[in-house]
Amino acid sequence: MSTTNTLFVMVASILVFFMTPGLAFFYGGMVSRRNSVNTLLSVFFISGLAIILWVALGYSLSFNGNVFGLVGNLHAMMMSNVRLDQLTTGKIPLGLYSLFQMMFAIITPALFVGAIVGRVRFKFLMVFIICWSVCVYYPLVHMIWGNGLLSKLGALDFAGGTVVHINAGITALVLSIMVGPRSHPEDEHANHSWILLGTAILWIGWYGFNAGSALAINDVAMQAMITTTIATAASMVAWQLLEVWRVGHITLVGTCSGALCGLVAITPAAGYVAIDSALWIGLIGSVVSFLFVTLIKPKIHLDDTLDAFGCHGVSGIWGSIATGLFASHAINSHVTSDGLFVGGGWHLFNIQLLTTVIVIAWTFIISMLLIKLISYWMQIRVSSDDEILGLDLSQHNEPLHSTRLASERSE
Amino acid sequence: MSTTNTLFVMVASILVFFMTPGLAFFYGGMVSRRNSVNTLLSVFFISGLAIILWVALGYSLSFNGNVFGLVGNLHAMMMSNVRLDQLTTGKIPLGLYSLFQMMFAIITPALFVGAIVGRVRFKFLMVFIICWSVCVYYPLVHMIWGNGLLSKLGALDFAGGTVVHINAGITALVLSIMVGPRSHPEDEHANHSWILLGTAILWIGWYGFNAGSALAINDVAMQAMITTTIATAASMVAWQLLEVWRVGHITLVGTCSGALCGLVAITPAAGYVAIDSALWIGLIGSVVSFLFVTLIKPKIHLDDTLDAFGCHGVSGIWGSIATGLFASHAINSHVTSDGLFVGGGWHLFNIQLLTTVIVIAWTFIISMLLIKLISYWMQIRVSSDDEILGLDLSQHNEPLHSTRLASERSE
Amino acid sequence: MSTTNTLFVMVASILVFFMTPGLAFFYGGMVSRRNSVNTLLSVFFISGLAIILWVALGYSLSFNGNVFGLVGNLHAMMMSNVRLDQLTTGKIPLGLYSLFQMMFAIITPALFVGAIVGRVRFKFLMVFIICWSVCVYYPLVHMIWGNGLLSKLGALDFAGGTVVHINAGITALVLSIMVGPRSHPEDEHANHSWILLGTAILWIGWYGFNAGSALAINDVAMQAMITTTIATAASMVAWQLLEVWRVGHITLVGTCSGALCGLVAITPAAGYVAIDSALWIGLIGSVVSFLFVTLIKPKIHLDDTLDAFGCHGVSGIWGSIATGLFASHAINSHVTSDGLFVGGGWHLFNIQLLTTVIVIAWTFIISMLLIKLISYWMQIRVSSDDEILGLDLSQHNEPLHSTRLASERSE
Repeated sequence: MSTTNTLFVMVASILVFFMTPGLAFFYGGMVSRRNSVNTLLSVFFISGLAIILWVALGYSLSFNGNVFGLVGNLHAMMMSNVRLDQLTTGKIPLGLYSLFQMMFAIITPALFVGAIVGRVRFKFLMVFIICWSVCVYYPLVHMIWGNGLLSKLGALDFAGGTVVHINAGITALVLSIMVGPRSHPEDEHANHSWILLGTAILWIGWYGFNAGSALAINDVAMQAMITTTIATAASMVAWQLLEVWRVGHITLVGTCSGALCGLVAITPAAGYVAIDSALWIGLIGSVVSFLFVTLIKPKIHLDDTLDAFGCHGVSGIWGSIATGLFASHAINSHVTSDGLFVGGGWHLFNIQLLTTVIVIAWTFIISMLLIKLISYWMQIRVSSDDEILGLDLSQHNEPLHSTRLASERSE
Repeated sequence: MSTTNTLFVMVASILVFFMTPGLAFFYGGMVSRRNSVNTLLSVFFISGLAIILWVALGYSLSFNGNVFGLVGNLHAMMMSNVRLDQLTTGKIPLGLYSLFQMMFAIITPALFVGAIVGRVRFKFLMVFIICWSVCVYYPLVHMIWGNGLLSKLGALDFAGGTVVHINAGITALVLSIMVGPRSHPEDEHANHSWILLGTAILWIGWYGFNAGSALAINDVAMQAMITTTIATAASMVAWQLLEVWRVGHITLVGTCSGALCGLVAITPAAGYVAIDSALWIGLIGSVVSFLFVTLIKPKIHLDDTLDAFGCHGVSGIWGSIATGLFASHAINSHVTSDGLFVGGGWHLFNIQLLTTVIVIAWTFIISMLLIKLISYWMQIRVSSDDEILGLDLSQHNEPLHSTRLASERSE
Repeated sequence: MSTTNTLFVMVASILVFFMTPGLAFFYGGMVSRRNSVNTLLSVFFISGLAIILWVALGYSLSFNGNVFGLVGNLHAMMMSNVRLDQLTTGKIPLGLYSLFQMMFAIITPALFVGAIVGRVRFKFLMVFIICWSVCVYYPLVHMIWGNGLLSKLGALDFAGGTVVHINAGITALVLSIMVGPRSHPEDEHANHSWILLGTAILWIGWYGFNAGSALAINDVAMQAMITTTIATAASMVAWQLLEVWRVGHITLVGTCSGALCGLVAITPAAGYVAIDSALWIGLIGSVVSFLFVTLIKPKIHLDDTLDAFGCHGVSGIWGSIATGLFASHAINSHVTSDGLFVGGGWHLFNIQLLTTVIVIAWTFIISMLLIKLISYWMQIRVSSDDEILGLDLSQHNEPLHSTRLASERSE
């Protein structure tokens, strides 16, 4: 066992776990107060569900065996038939690698919650996340990181641009189309300070996400930390400039959104690109996401309420393609073919483009089918009355400023 | 010095320290707004007091020498007569081990504050915590972790199930009995989002608490991280199911309470049990705590306001006993006798049961005596008028939304 | 590469980064609600700006080459002409050392924002921070940590007492004098719980700041962690006692201010002093800051609104001088001449005094000139009407509880 690498991935796992409550605050601060508890809970409850699901099925379907290159098998259900102390990449124990991956399986479905806040039944969300984890997420993890189809293609995804961000972004798109827009406008938001709190936690957690994906303390891990920082700053500044251009001033929400788009965009490229490339990746991430959410989204009447697609989908797609532009063998020896702008020609670019299209198609089609199937079984949306009342009361009987504790309500 | 282990325990110490403000938010979000600053402060101020006390007396009384197996001596007051750079377990320096332990000495008294919010004088709390640290906590640390009586018995307590949770839980019980219930019902809570913030911080901090207690990067530390995660998730899901069964929906407070009970229950067992055992320990932790706070507590008219006993006491006792059921030599070679369900017979179970009873008795009796003694010296409760006014104004002249800073009030 | 030291400085960098949003909450919780978003943003937006500036100019001007001992050169702009993987102090890669230093370049200007909340134009703040970073901060980093003039003098500054705290504190003083006081009294504060949140994050981040400055896992790093903890606790308790003496009770704001003063005071001395010295440094830090903000500040009609000078300046100056009193060769072999109270005579004390005076003069003069110059170019303060309206609306059109997202406002 490499004790240093093991400690590194332990710390990284804790940081990635922290992102989920961070995201709860990021989303919770942008919704009406009447939907704030529901939004916090819709994100955070996934930590319980997704952990159990990962141990029961996820690890096995993602990493154990190989069925047609699409998915693993069920022989390691409940982590049986595997030795937790067996050494894996970076000489860290397999149990820890599974734990690190588990944290990704929590945050990914949490991301698309932002597309449909304020109108879906909590029960639908729960059922959808279970089905989606099994049918969309675990197979994709297998295909990219578990020696499946897409990894054989030569696709590069350093820390989850395809598996996490494009995947969650496209699911968000499908959800917001099929669930439909809110019937009633938002009123006073819960609290904009939550957005800052969430962004700060997401940012520090992302160091675990991106640097941690090196799975070892080496120059690649350092490079990932540096590029993550620079892309995020560039993206934040770019969004601020776009805001000044469009509305004449900088906002807190814009600043935080910009930071997030940078974090998303650099994710697939973090350990593969140079500093100046990171700057461009972050900067353009903001530009494409900003243009989408302010210009295109209103025109197509998409109610991706908190821009889960607009940020994670759009910046995620950009980042995945940008990896084909900027990845460099000089930075990371795993890059066997340099990106287009680094002088490697179209080879890697084409692979990245193809992979991106496959991931988009996979997620779009299966998510759509799942929602359709579930819609035959149960109602997806709350009633219009419940939407006006707010989901805190209608789904949980728990306003943000309650007068009784949950245990007292159970009497 | 093992630099990796040293870094590990440094990180773990920081994480455990973070739990105290996390707990402040967890508790602060559940009380009336008029008591919110007082609750935040009643938890957080302990960090100052307990650190000074630990350096002055605590380390010495816990770890230096041995008086009748019950307590240390006073030769290392102010960390004198010890070399901070002397290597200890896991080849980490003694000064760091003392720092790690210091963080436990902060969070433990903070836990029982939840039992008596909204009605005690701040001055009483301060005096009680000083007396309790010296008379209850340091001796218990000595007995379990400082080569005292209970460690000689063969009792297993991986990360503080007895020393921290049963201890704080029983003190909470004694306090809520002797202080008596609130005279006035709670009104609008400060903010339920604080509960989520607190839970998230407590959860990540708990990785320092449980994994850090291995004091070295090895398979046991990894196992503790994994079991902590799984028990917490199982407990969270179990509480949610219990809520659906009892009131028909999931709440944020319930979800967070469930997570906390899982964290508590797994603490003494974290580095000793297998994954499936962790699942059961977490799940049953929620069940016993849920049944206590919703069924038994109302019947016995106990005003353990924020369930400090209901969660830490009840789940803590369960966890300590469960260690006697599930601890396994295959997981950790320090387990010399397997637990009952792992095929080791009654031996370990009986030791765990006996230890649990001794800790309960020790804490109950001495805490009761201390409160009684202090009650001769000073008034414990605020006046009924002050209780209605709220403790923020009556104890600190500082409402949650103030119009002046503290320094301006001192003019 | 020392992988352990590299991991250590990675973790430390993340912790120091976390301090900036922490400070945003610390300051945000003390201002009127109408200025709360502006205050959060005025601190947090610096993370984007300062990162870009550091990569573009900062590293080069601070650490590359040497111009008259005052500043570096421009040969490493955009991190060009340096190898990121080149090993530096503690055998960590240069890229990581640059990242660690980058985090200090974010938090330092963020500190002085507290002196002038509620009245300056956001655009002025942006321009001033750019000029100040280039003309005040990078040269000072060079002089103290980049083999410049002051390091040659033999001055000790373990983690940034001069570079960060005196520097930011004096700039805060100059700003509050030259910008002038608020015209209108504060009304209801945003939320005092933010102050606790901010303090907690600052405290844990400070472990990265102080222990991380050892740049290696060794006894000095451990000593810095221990002294930081003890000085902070002593300072917190001291402030509480001073409050009881002056107004008869403890407050949350006072407790947090006390903790902060202790963190500031111990910073330059953290890795150089013994435990009992740390206790005195923290304790006296609180006393001098408390006396300044409650007795002197009102008399000189200084509107250093959130005590950026009162805390960072005053406790920072004390800490820098105290290093000359308590630094000990027995603790750290880099201390070539013991402090006055450790029996080393006046030598080190005089150096510390001289350094402190030079840093004060440097910062005071250049900051004043910069503000003067900028005032010819643009208006510094918002109009009186905008001040009454609040900066959230006048500068960002974004109240704390908004009804629309920023992206919706850009339509």
